[in-house]
Amino acid sequence: MPAQHVKLEGHIIDQPILSRVLDTVERFGGCYEIVELDIGTTRKAESRALLCVKADDEATLQSVLQNLALLGVEPVMPIPAKWEDAPADGVLPDRFYATTNLPTEVFVEGRWLSVTGQEMDLAIVLDESMQRAWTVPMADVRAGQRVVVATEGVRVSYPPRQQDSTGFRFMESAVSAEKPKRPLLQRIVATARRIKAEGGKVLLVGGPAIIHTGAGPVLEKLIRDGWIDVLFAGNALAAHDIEAALYGTSLGVPVEGGPPGGEGHAHHLWAINRIRRAGSIAGAVELGSLTKGVMHACISRSVPFVLAGSIRDDGPLPDVITDTLTAQRAMRSHVQGVGMAIMVGTTLHAIATGNLLPAGVVTVCVDVNPAVVTKLQDRGSRQSLGIVMDAASFLEYLADGLGQR
Amino acid sequence: MPAQHVKLEGHIIDQPILSRVLDTVERFGGCYEIVELDIGTTRKAESRALLCVKADDEATLQSVLQNLALLGVEPVMPIPAKWEDAPADGVLPDRFYATTNLPTEVFVEGRWLSVTGQEMDLAIVLDESMQRAWTVPMADVRAGQRVVVATEGVRVSYPPRQQDSTGFRFMESAVSAEKPKRPLLQRIVATARRIKAEGGKVLLVGGPAIIHTGAGPVLEKLIRDGWIDVLFAGNALAAHDIEAALYGTSLGVPVEGGPPGGEGHAHHLWAINRIRRAGSIAGAVELGSLTKGVMHACISRSVPFVLAGSIRDDGPLPDVITDTLTAQRAMRSHVQGVGMAIMVGTTLHAIATGNLLPAGVVTVCVDVNPAVVTKLQDRGSRQSLGIVMDAASFLEYLADGLGQR
Amino acid sequence: MPAQHVKLEGHIIDQPILSRVLDTVERFGGCYEIVELDIGTTRKAESRALLCVKADDEATLQSVLQNLALLGVEPVMPIPAKWEDAPADGVLPDRFYATTNLPTEVFVEGRWLSVTGQEMDLAIVLDESMQRAWTVPMADVRAGQRVVVATEGVRVSYPPRQQDSTGFRFMESAVSAEKPKRPLLQRIVATARRIKAEGGKVLLVGGPAIIHTGAGPVLEKLIRDGWIDVLFAGNALAAHDIEAALYGTSLGVPVEGGPPGGEGHAHHLWAINRIRRAGSIAGAVELGSLTKGVMHACISRSVPFVLAGSIRDDGPLPDVITDTLTAQRAMRSHVQGVGMAIMVGTTLHAIATGNLLPAGVVTVCVDVNPAVVTKLQDRGSRQSLGIVMDAASFLEYLADGLGQR
Amino acid sequence: MPAQHVKLEGHIIDQPILSRVLDTVERFGGCYEIVELDIGTTRKAESRALLCVKADDEATLQSVLQNLALLGVEPVMPIPAKWEDAPADGVLPDRFYATTNLPTEVFVEGRWLSVTGQEMDLAIVLDESMQRAWTVPMADVRAGQRVVVATEGVRVSYPPRQQDSTGFRFMESAVSAEKPKRPLLQRIVATARRIKAEGGKVLLVGGPAIIHTGAGPVLEKLIRDGWIDVLFAGNALAAHDIEAALYGTSLGVPVEGGPPGGEGHAHHLWAINRIRRAGSIAGAVELGSLTKGVMHACISRSVPFVLAGSIRDDGPLPDVITDTLTAQRAMRSHVQGVGMAIMVGTTLHAIATGNLLPAGVVTVCVDVNPAVVTKLQDRGSRQSLGIVMDAASFLEYLADGLGQR
Repeated sequence: MPAQHVKLEGHIIDQPILSRVLDTVERFGGCYEIVELDIGTTRKAESRALLCVKADDEATLQSVLQNLALLGVEPVMPIPAKWEDAPADGVLPDRFYATTNLPTEVFVEGRWLSVTGQEMDLAIVLDESMQRAWTVPMADVRAGQRVVVATEGVRVSYPPRQQDSTGFRFMESAVSAEKPKRPLLQRIVATARRIKAEGGKVLLVGGPAIIHTGAGPVLEKLIRDGWIDVLFAGNALAAHDIEAALYGTSLGVPVEGGPPGGEGHAHHLWAINRIRRAGSIAGAVELGSLTKGVMHACISRSVPFVLAGSIRDDGPLPDVITDTLTAQRAMRSHVQGVGMAIMVGTTLHAIATGNLLPAGVVTVCVDVNPAVVTKLQDRGSRQSLGIVMDAASFLEYLADGLGQR
Repeated sequence: MPAQHVKLEGHIIDQPILSRVLDTVERFGGCYEIVELDIGTTRKAESRALLCVKADDEATLQSVLQNLALLGVEPVMPIPAKWEDAPADGVLPDRFYATTNLPTEVFVEGRWLSVTGQEMDLAIVLDESMQRAWTVPMADVRAGQRVVVATEGVRVSYPPRQQDSTGFRFMESAVSAEKPKRPLLQRIVATARRIKAEGGKVLLVGGPAIIHTGAGPVLEKLIRDGWIDVLFAGNALAAHDIEAALYGTSLGVPVEGGPPGGEGHAHHLWAINRIRRAGSIAGAVELGSLTKGVMHACISRSVPFVLAGSIRDDGPLPDVITDTLTAQRAMRSHVQGVGMAIMVGTTLHAIATGNLLPAGVVTVCVDVNPAVVTKLQDRGSRQSLGIVMDAASFLEYLADGLGQR
Repeated sequence: MPAQHVKLEGHIIDQPILSRVLDTVERFGGCYEIVELDIGTTRKAESRALLCVKADDEATLQSVLQNLALLGVEPVMPIPAKWEDAPADGVLPDRFYATTNLPTEVFVEGRWLSVTGQEMDLAIVLDESMQRAWTVPMADVRAGQRVVVATEGVRVSYPPRQQDSTGFRFMESAVSAEKPKRPLLQRIVATARRIKAEGGKVLLVGGPAIIHTGAGPVLEKLIRDGWIDVLFAGNALAAHDIEAALYGTSLGVPVEGGPPGGEGHAHHLWAINRIRRAGSIAGAVELGSLTKGVMHACISRSVPFVLAGSIRDDGPLPDVITDTLTAQRAMRSHVQGVGMAIMVGTTLHAIATGNLLPAGVVTVCVDVNPAVVTKLQDRGSRQSLGIVMDAASFLEYLADGLGQR
Repeated sequence: MPAQHVKLEGHIIDQPILSRVLDTVERFGGCYEIVELDIGTTRKAESRALLCVKADDEATLQSVLQNLALLGVEPVMPIPAKWEDAPADGVLPDRFYATTNLPTEVFVEGRWLSVTGQEMDLAIVLDESMQRAWTVPMADVRAGQRVVVATEGVRVSYPPRQQDSTGFRFMESAVSAEKPKRPLLQRIVATARRIKAEGGKVLLVGGPAIIHTGAGPVLEKLIRDGWIDVLFAGNALAAHDIEAALYGTSLGVPVEGGPPGGEGHAHHLWAINRIRRAGSIAGAVELGSLTKGVMHACISRSVPFVLAGSIRDDGPLPDVITDTLTAQRAMRSHVQGVGMAIMVGTTLHAIATGNLLPAGVVTVCVDVNPAVVTKLQDRGSRQSLGIVMDAASFLEYLADGLGQR
């Protein structure tokens, strides 16, 4: 009967990885014997397990082992990673290994190489000297590049479970609208402070509801006060922010109250047009025609932003990157060094950004609609903390919390 | 021909009560002549109208007059209110008058009595001297009390319309999940048939939930049977449709049930990659590697489609138009001749398409989330009919309805 | 006094365009005289109106006329459309006319030209011969093209109102989460102040989410400060309020943060039990065992409350009226004199209270779930203003607003 | 250092109970040593662990042990359960033990007694001979009854984790609107068949949306065909069902389509009134005035029903139990023998019923609003499977599935 020894290390009971491993062995047709089990006597201590995995035939055993590898369980003697040449520009080999957002290594030429560029759903490319491995999006692969296929020789590390003290743990319950909000908000404020203190960047991903609900000035202040290091948004947030700066309305509705005027529905179009005339948002700031608002704060504080295009855009603003692949590349480049991502009132940009973030980035997703966070988590961004709250209330809490020194 | 003069007073144009009155006369089988119309020259001034309402027979006339009474329109010579004794404690006479929450009066013994206790869904009781009238809940009525029945001799006052400046406007519920679905669905089926019979095109705008919820084969059949003339979607619908065709899964979850496999999360990426290798979806169909599914149906039936890119796309498929302005132009060109647009399970594409459609196009928006339709309507696509329903259930109803010849 | 004759034709009563026209004249500072009004005697017949619109000065008159033009009302002698050259490729003139999705015409050189390409939010371009007009997206305009600006000389046709039988009615969005919140909140604060100043009562109808989300102390303060005159709630709000007062938790979750304790799920049961032992909430206050919280505030400020029972109650508290008919009667008796009802985080109690209120009571319904307000309105409580917001954020805004003297 | 040996048995890794136990020890201030660990070599085999739990002082140790008891971990030498006399009718001792919905035993006089009446949030009463233990609601306890307090000597059994083959496992993901529905629905059908074949009862808990959305006839057929053994609902479902039977409308909207009539809003009131006149629903069936519908099917098939009152009821029907405690008792008595509970379109009744059900009952919760299922699960009914779907579509699927022999 074919057999192979595999080992697990880490918080395997605590996680609980061990139960998933045993589950996986049986689900794919194998059986196991626990050869050795060394459980840490405290929670912080790590555990070790040595299992002998068996199956009726070699193919079944390989299938079991491959699926264990996805859980970070490696054979005592690792199997080398396999690779194939990319058949054409923008085309990967069949059954290429698709990455997760966890730290990943590949076993090539007898040692484990770290894979740089931790992001989900990409391929892993090896350089010719077999000294380096990195992730590459499908569209960016070049013909002939060596691409890792199948799952042998690839291992991922699960992050240690978060402690209560950081609070980023209870996922399913976090989406409830019936939990006390203040403790959650306090932890978010504390985390933002810590990330900044450690030199990490805070990324804000925002939808136009921020402007519609009248919270533009709050976000503007957060940017001016240096709390936001990068802004991801679409044409709509920027256009309505500029509409508010120029006409005092958002989608024609006065943000400070009062009845909608007669031509209000044209305001955001006129706003976009004026920026197009100036050539760019920065151009309009320089000309003195744009003097306040979120985008003005980004320009004057040199906070970089990516405005990614979508098919529902009016205009768009000249700063919008209309090609979605180009926009993804711009977002990817700005994600480096981000320690915390705060997503407010946007489904499209939140999911797009979630796809780009390594698992270790603290992610906060705020929406009045619980379905958005569920969606984000279903797509793999499990580290996200969801808060069911309207955009304006959240940003005001955040600004109040960060403002208190 | 039986006839009766009725009068209206108050803000009858402003409200607009007059249109509802004329509407009601015709709906219940009568006709009218405007005898006198005195419109206030400012908004605060009240208007007066005197109508002569006629019908072919007395019964129809009475039915019209009763329904006018519900609108606060009284005959010049009021009809006295009718009453019956409550037959038992806690039991009202049949067809008792059920109150609204508006100020109400009853005409008894030649004068109008105010009804005290303004609350909806109660009965009106008269005291023995016919001097007082008040509301009473069903459970609290006592045997023998005089209860008003039918609608003659009852009138209600509509409050003056609230000003914009106070903001407390009366609102209409557009998108309830609590309305009977079948009549709505039958109308949609009938409209689709009519549009097709008139030579109009039916556009389907779809999101990946169609595939995730297992309704891909239903949409495929609708296309093969010639009901859909154009398809607008994104990378996700097409990618998961092709994933389902090649691997039997959608986002790794088997669409026919069964446990998720070990590498399921890579399936949609492998599917995209195989189409990239073939150069296009049509190329894959020609090579024989794609043999079923929604996109296959489009190719083999020559149904044009626009796959518009978004920043959350994996891959994307080579048929996806990644530049959003180019995608808008492609969508715009296909909108010509469309008589009906059916939007299922997508926010982004529904709103983008809604922006492109003339007001006359019949638009149906189906989503399990009521917020999506509200959003579409807020952006100006007021002609849209919203149905709160999951994508799979809707498409099955539609296919069943259209399938019956 | 400058004046201009304008005419309306079509289904102007049925629509009801006429009321909107008269409304618009006054809103923009004009006045009117109805010179001629010819109302069709059946619904299918069209009506005609000739108005003389006046204003104090020419500028006001022009503004009124421009806004009337947006409604399809044209001067008897049309004003020619104005146009300017597009200043650059992809850039439109300032204040260009932004299209609707309705059929549109422009008045140039003495006649009405149909605009081809009916789509919203585009510009209108005229060819050099002034023979043709068509729509163009902002990004596609070329330098030097003649673009229509302002609203003079542009008219749109409203489609005839759809019949009930087709079901495709134009709908109003009532409960968007995308409206500016602050003006709405300011109006609620102002209304509460006005109602109190006029001697009316403010009724708060609350669900347990108020306590769960940590807003109990805010509601407590509102009661102590005299803003709330009556409280309607169920067993849950009171039980969790008392749980928070006695154990610092709500449903076992610490309202000030920290990890849930081991027996937290029993806290609300123990809280109920302790009140049962004391005989009533007032009894517990008297004994000194309940010293803070919402219910304590009601007792010490003599604010009456009705706790109505439901089948999901634990315990219940001895103050809960378990018979639903008796509870309705108690609520009915406290509704007298209420001028404003604020419903926060409860479906059952909001609808039950809505059924009892006269139409004139200002009703505010706050819930994080838009479906709740829709439901309230569908059941006839049309006067309700809905806000999609979490309970805690709303109450904090309200308390802040009312606290500022 | 005080210490105590505790043991765990069962699927402690698989569950994963062990990690929660170790977690609990540390959280409450203790430490542990794993004395013995015997892990089953297959998933079906049970595991055993013997731990030595220590703490700095006896009080801490007791607190740790009590919290372990909540997880089903018992000391090798159990501590006897403590009890106190109930101080008054309807009042429990302070800090009484509040039950879960899991199988429970208490250790009295040297042996483990099974607690009958498995339901959450009740107290446990011991008879005088200490031979029997059963659950009792707070309101039903009598002065002097022996009530278990604190957590010592109480143990609960966790059910074995459900297998993929039964499908009732993935809770958080089950609420997603983006999963294939057909496999889920097929499992529900198969489970209903199995429960019935085993002699178990199927309970349907329904809201009025069933009638509003036109699915009344489907539910009626399910009852007539013998698939439903008990019905829990409120006044609204029954009233609108009877309204549909008598007037063809639900809340005045024709369930088969067509325009709403003039007095439709009174139909449900007239329907209630007619039943009140007949004395009961059964009375109206006997008199021949009610001849079809859901309630008629219950009467003619002798399917018992509980109509529980709520404060938003109109009327109510004479069969409605208006006292909520009495209604709970009626529901409790009908829950005996129920193997499957199907909850459709109701929040109030679903949660109330969920509170009464033992953990082993298969529970299916169907609502178009994902928040309802989340709410049910947050309140402890974790065994519930949620489906985001409209009531009509679900019931039609169910009836189709069960109809195929």
